[in-house]
Amino acid sequence: MTKIKVAMVGGGIGGFIGEIHRMAMRLDDRYELVAGALSSDAKRAKESAAKLGLRGYATWQELLEKEKDSVDCIVIVTPNDSHAEIAIAALQADYHVVLDKPMTRTLEEAISLAATAVTSNSKFAMTYTYTGYPMVRQMRERILNGDIGNIRTVSVDYRQGWLAEPIENEGQKQATWRTDPSKSGSGALGDIGSHAEQLARFVTGLAITKVRGDVHSVVQGRKVDDHACVQLEMEQGVIGDLVCSQICTGERNSVSIRVWGDEGSLSWNHNSCDALTSTAPDGTETISYCELNRAPSGHPAGFVEAFANIYTDCANHIQGKEATIIGVEDGLASMKCIHAVLQSQESQTWQNV
Amino acid sequence: MTKIKVAMVGGGIGGFIGEIHRMAMRLDDRYELVAGALSSDAKRAKESAAKLGLRGYATWQELLEKEKDSVDCIVIVTPNDSHAEIAIAALQADYHVVLDKPMTRTLEEAISLAATAVTSNSKFAMTYTYTGYPMVRQMRERILNGDIGNIRTVSVDYRQGWLAEPIENEGQKQATWRTDPSKSGSGALGDIGSHAEQLARFVTGLAITKVRGDVHSVVQGRKVDDHACVQLEMEQGVIGDLVCSQICTGERNSVSIRVWGDEGSLSWNHNSCDALTSTAPDGTETISYCELNRAPSGHPAGFVEAFANIYTDCANHIQGKEATIIGVEDGLASMKCIHAVLQSQESQTWQNV
Amino acid sequence: MTKIKVAMVGGGIGGFIGEIHRMAMRLDDRYELVAGALSSDAKRAKESAAKLGLRGYATWQELLEKEKDSVDCIVIVTPNDSHAEIAIAALQADYHVVLDKPMTRTLEEAISLAATAVTSNSKFAMTYTYTGYPMVRQMRERILNGDIGNIRTVSVDYRQGWLAEPIENEGQKQATWRTDPSKSGSGALGDIGSHAEQLARFVTGLAITKVRGDVHSVVQGRKVDDHACVQLEMEQGVIGDLVCSQICTGERNSVSIRVWGDEGSLSWNHNSCDALTSTAPDGTETISYCELNRAPSGHPAGFVEAFANIYTDCANHIQGKEATIIGVEDGLASMKCIHAVLQSQESQTWQNV
Amino acid sequence: MTKIKVAMVGGGIGGFIGEIHRMAMRLDDRYELVAGALSSDAKRAKESAAKLGLRGYATWQELLEKEKDSVDCIVIVTPNDSHAEIAIAALQADYHVVLDKPMTRTLEEAISLAATAVTSNSKFAMTYTYTGYPMVRQMRERILNGDIGNIRTVSVDYRQGWLAEPIENEGQKQATWRTDPSKSGSGALGDIGSHAEQLARFVTGLAITKVRGDVHSVVQGRKVDDHACVQLEMEQGVIGDLVCSQICTGERNSVSIRVWGDEGSLSWNHNSCDALTSTAPDGTETISYCELNRAPSGHPAGFVEAFANIYTDCANHIQGKEATIIGVEDGLASMKCIHAVLQSQESQTWQNV
Repeated sequence: MTKIKVAMVGGGIGGFIGEIHRMAMRLDDRYELVAGALSSDAKRAKESAAKLGLRGYATWQELLEKEKDSVDCIVIVTPNDSHAEIAIAALQADYHVVLDKPMTRTLEEAISLAATAVTSNSKFAMTYTYTGYPMVRQMRERILNGDIGNIRTVSVDYRQGWLAEPIENEGQKQATWRTDPSKSGSGALGDIGSHAEQLARFVTGLAITKVRGDVHSVVQGRKVDDHACVQLEMEQGVIGDLVCSQICTGERNSVSIRVWGDEGSLSWNHNSCDALTSTAPDGTETISYCELNRAPSGHPAGFVEAFANIYTDCANHIQGKEATIIGVEDGLASMKCIHAVLQSQESQTWQNV
Repeated sequence: MTKIKVAMVGGGIGGFIGEIHRMAMRLDDRYELVAGALSSDAKRAKESAAKLGLRGYATWQELLEKEKDSVDCIVIVTPNDSHAEIAIAALQADYHVVLDKPMTRTLEEAISLAATAVTSNSKFAMTYTYTGYPMVRQMRERILNGDIGNIRTVSVDYRQGWLAEPIENEGQKQATWRTDPSKSGSGALGDIGSHAEQLARFVTGLAITKVRGDVHSVVQGRKVDDHACVQLEMEQGVIGDLVCSQICTGERNSVSIRVWGDEGSLSWNHNSCDALTSTAPDGTETISYCELNRAPSGHPAGFVEAFANIYTDCANHIQGKEATIIGVEDGLASMKCIHAVLQSQESQTWQNV
Repeated sequence: MTKIKVAMVGGGIGGFIGEIHRMAMRLDDRYELVAGALSSDAKRAKESAAKLGLRGYATWQELLEKEKDSVDCIVIVTPNDSHAEIAIAALQADYHVVLDKPMTRTLEEAISLAATAVTSNSKFAMTYTYTGYPMVRQMRERILNGDIGNIRTVSVDYRQGWLAEPIENEGQKQATWRTDPSKSGSGALGDIGSHAEQLARFVTGLAITKVRGDVHSVVQGRKVDDHACVQLEMEQGVIGDLVCSQICTGERNSVSIRVWGDEGSLSWNHNSCDALTSTAPDGTETISYCELNRAPSGHPAGFVEAFANIYTDCANHIQGKEATIIGVEDGLASMKCIHAVLQSQESQTWQNV
Repeated sequence: MTKIKVAMVGGGIGGFIGEIHRMAMRLDDRYELVAGALSSDAKRAKESAAKLGLRGYATWQELLEKEKDSVDCIVIVTPNDSHAEIAIAALQADYHVVLDKPMTRTLEEAISLAATAVTSNSKFAMTYTYTGYPMVRQMRERILNGDIGNIRTVSVDYRQGWLAEPIENEGQKQATWRTDPSKSGSGALGDIGSHAEQLARFVTGLAITKVRGDVHSVVQGRKVDDHACVQLEMEQGVIGDLVCSQICTGERNSVSIRVWGDEGSLSWNHNSCDALTSTAPDGTETISYCELNRAPSGHPAGFVEAFANIYTDCANHIQGKEATIIGVEDGLASMKCIHAVLQSQESQTWQNV
């Protein structure tokens, strides 16, 4: 099978997410990473490319211009504020685009990117990681298949503790841009609330129609939200609760989603990512374990493999095969939801999404 | 040690909660149950008393009148709508009172009962069960002791599934009165939301100051709330989220409370009631197991023992010893909170408690 | 229902197990404890009886003689070395007997007691606690019902840490008699190995036919075994492994039993005593929760309730009703098994049970 | 960093373990797989190589001869019976060797391979997977560091269910060679007992000195062992119990190891591979989570990543850097242990290892 030739924008050596994307691409061997504009800092960009054995560029503009004949797909893993510009330029230059979440910094930018993506001949997909877990997909299939009857209520809880202290003031790189509204747009809501709301929509197949958020910046002086509890209304009268927080001291990366229907419930927890628990009306719990990992059931898989699933699906999508991808509509829905939550905080009322 | 002579109002044979109260009283052998007006149905009242070997009365009024010299304490386990009247009468007749939660049907009634209780020479205590779990008490002690630093956020989740269907229409006795607003006052909020909010206050030592609830009657035609997601503000700027629901199909009686401070967190789950989990800022979890049960650590205890702890504390309280009891203030605070949540649903705004 | 009049031998105030037996008797209100020879120390015996409001005796002989007309049943909770003598005397005096496990100190004594018990008109039952857990009973029912097909292998693991240090040298009362072979017979094997092997037989309905034990006294200078790994052969070609240990530092009271058949498996763990896990051939796990506790499912039960179940069954047995009791045969089988394990250690060969 | 040029023997397309090895090599990008003799079937060997884009050979002999200048390392993933011959030839031809476990089919072959390996200038390492889990390594470090004091007892339990039925008779490829003693040497003992005993030695740093196994072929007609319970003696008077089984219906791949010292215990379970539980003498459990995965703590890792850790260590070893590898001595110790267990079954006595 032909490998997809990839160039990466952002993701220089020393950061976290770039290497995750590269491992995910390597795992199933569907990609060949050949070039990169790996940092907005020209020197670091060049050095990173050299270390990785790639054709290196000081700017993404130069990369897009020079690699037209030798690269199929641009993987964008920069901070949120450059997502729209780079993705739009890449699509217009006929590259396929794989874009890290959230789609953009602002809803406005997202609308603009979406307009480009839907009219492009190139493929566009986003890396909403949790969608890559086989048991999250199985949860969706079973819910859509009616296994729990009519959906009643959804609960998503995503808590981290890494921003429990104002580490942005000490120059921690991830914290600095993620708490700078000019870079990130929003805080916990955009960073992990986006995963949470996407999970809620993904596993139920239902849109979020209204939100009312109680949004806080718990850490003194922080310029973005770092904690929110959101009341949800979804299609078909489904109600929900969503909490996302980055100030819950000691939480490593705790994600859970539970959905109750009138004939039972299904729940998934990141900490036991290979398992899916279904509860019958009589309270009996059945735990199914993943059969779809790269090793036989009983050999645990995890985050890197989930990420690789996303990339393998992106490869299938790019090569015209069937695939579960998170595309324009989904990315835009996520931006709309986060936007509405922030608006609801300002207005102190429910907001339509 | 002298046993406390008890008469019970409500709790006839065939119901659930009366026998729990009786077992809890027997477990530590501090009470002697001698009389009862065990049902509002005179025939059932008499039969129940006969079966239990008690002096039986057709009405609680008669009981109060006749047992003045032979009973120390009235245990009230009737539906909510008669709580205020019976408790007030019992206190006025100089009986001690142990009252099942919630305090009353309405906030108005609660205020009236409170006024009587605070001026009475008799003792008044309520059976908020979760307070009886030793690890819930240890959670409170450790939080008040500063083990997790300054409290930031609280999350309480209490879900049941037994009202997932409109079983009140089929004459299920518990469901019938609990979903009849003239009997119960409110639905899930009063029945289990009261436990949830009490837990939040108990373990933190902080009052709830403001609430904004998203309150639903999910089951068609139901006359009371059966599901609510409540955003909380507590003293000292603490924020919280509380969900209570009786329509989560398959949930047996799932209660959890988690509290995060700036130096760690503590969490407790009903399903592992003998354990308390603390999480350090680095994510390490430490699980402490109960040393205070009736059998050595490693021999699980449960609901009946927690209930017996409540009763033993009530006995200590009645006999003038030190005890952790849930008294007038706490019962009233709970009624105010539930009332405010219902008001916030009507007004669609935050309500002060 | 008539209550059973009980006298207790052993179990004075300050010990652990006596009060457990008394709570268990009280919980379901089927017994009335009226007399006791609560200690081999006459003074402590009298004081304990006085505190409990019982007719007190300095010796069990005196009690047996004096209470013939006023007591139905003798509950024996003394150290192992007096089990046989007291139980035989009680049965011969036409009392029913409820005897704590193990049956006796030695196999010889057990044979002698068994001979008396089988010819007596009185009822004889033993308190093998784990048999009282509803989910252990359900495990047995489901296995006997063929739910896991033909049984293949059994694994029982019972570990404690309370004897990890030579606390018998510091006068800890429980440790002192339990590690004195003249009082206890054997150490970990008799104390908790007896529970373990009984569980294996109880849930499978199969006898243990051969054993080969690797038996150790890990703590220096200890006079009895404190750790053993036993290979088992059971009826129908079933094989098993059993570990019992009291020197596993930090283990509170960790008991688990797992049984695999050719169509699935069932496992139970003391730490989650209300749950029973069944595993299907494809690895899917189903967790059933107890419906048979005193409170509805979701309200955890524990050791005291399991103990009360044993006592309620004993009450039914004594009053001529159907009951699951652990009787003569079972107690004797347990003694034979422990005896054979110790012999196998001496001979370093398999021993028939 | 220079990549290591690799050729693979065995591991053709369609099998399970070859692709796992290839993914593990790709994950950290330290290897370049360039050639293969991927099957003993010449046609399948060529086709597999073509699909993977490798230089393909019909026989490993040809590969060894032709690739001397272009390959650094031979990865051997064939059935056990060819391990010795291929590994010896590869080492003699100056290739580094990475060999799947167990070392060989028989102890005799292992001794022969060891003799070659220790005198070779090339590097030799084996892929005992469990050693690749960071928390297994942390368990070892903490035990060697004295965290649990003097070790007392070890318990290893490794159960699978995939051979619960005689699927070797239906031509299942893995089952066929693994239950054919001429191919595999032994059954469950060599296949997974080897992992179990290696884990026991790895985490404690102690050799196994004596064994007494109760070894069975539970499935009728099976030519190798499929279930064993082994009593262990280790250095320093440590005792242990080890169960390995492939007939435990429904077990996917259940591995746990627990070690008790006189100051606490540590335990690890494959199902929660990112966690390590330590228990203090008072029963308090502390769960530490892995910080050493490729993603931050809270993003679960698993089997493929553990395997990649092994390969990264092998790469370091081959390139002369420090590394934790499983080498000749360890492989030989494992073969000796399995051999002694089988002998103990024949002799029905303890066997020195």
